[in-house]
Amino acid sequence: MTRATLLFAHGARDPRWAEPFAGVAARIRAADPGHRVELAFLELMRPDLREAAAALAGAGATRIDVVPLFLGSGGHVRRDLPALLATLRDAHRDVDFRLHGAVGESDAVIEAMARTALDASRSE
Amino acid sequence: MTRATLLFAHGARDPRWAEPFAGVAARIRAADPGHRVELAFLELMRPDLREAAAALAGAGATRIDVVPLFLGSGGHVRRDLPALLATLRDAHRDVDFRLHGAVGESDAVIEAMARTALDASRSE
Repeated sequence: MTRATLLFAHGARDPRWAEPFAGVAARIRAADPGHRVELAFLELMRPDLREAAAALAGAGATRIDVVPLFLGSGGHVRRDLPALLATLRDAHRDVDFRLHGAVGESDAVIEAMARTALDASRSE
Repeated sequence: MTRATLLFAHGARDPRWAEPFAGVAARIRAADPGHRVELAFLELMRPDLREAAAALAGAGATRIDVVPLFLGSGGHVRRDLPALLATLRDAHRDVDFRLHGAVGESDAVIEAMARTALDASRSE
């Protein structure tokens, strides 16, 4: 089994918006250089989920972990993403797609946000 | 000077979406019980920024650190929020409002997102 990670974010008109997501991908690559990681967007930015999944499957991934880079789980994570995953599973029947929870719901991210906010409030 | 923190998030139709943000506020309160923290939303959820700022100013805050709970800085953080801040400064001339960057742009949050995504990709 060859694993890969698909980071799924919302997208925005301003290209600077995506900088933290590129940072997440870069850190994963630094921590695990052999691991293939792609970013994909729901709207306004490219590639979309279908394109990124095709790139990973084409490169030999047989398990793709889809991690939503969203702070909370609203309609995009609860409805749009499962529907998109269903079409990916249809298109790549030999790939095991695993859908994970929104990254912002993890204790580590909540803790880091709280620490960042506290630091801001304690600044001069 | 009495400091307070205003956590500013986007808002969504699904009330479960806000759970991580309530978690951030709870952690700040646990780390610094005397520090006043309020959540506010751009749309779809209450209170809005004006209501939350009025509550903090009414409780005696003379410096309010506004921390955007956004992953990246798109139009909401770069345009909408500064415009909202200008109206708050007009409404509360004795309060020092400090606008901070999107929490998702901090190294700590990017690192926590990368770690969470790696853990997902290494799960069974």
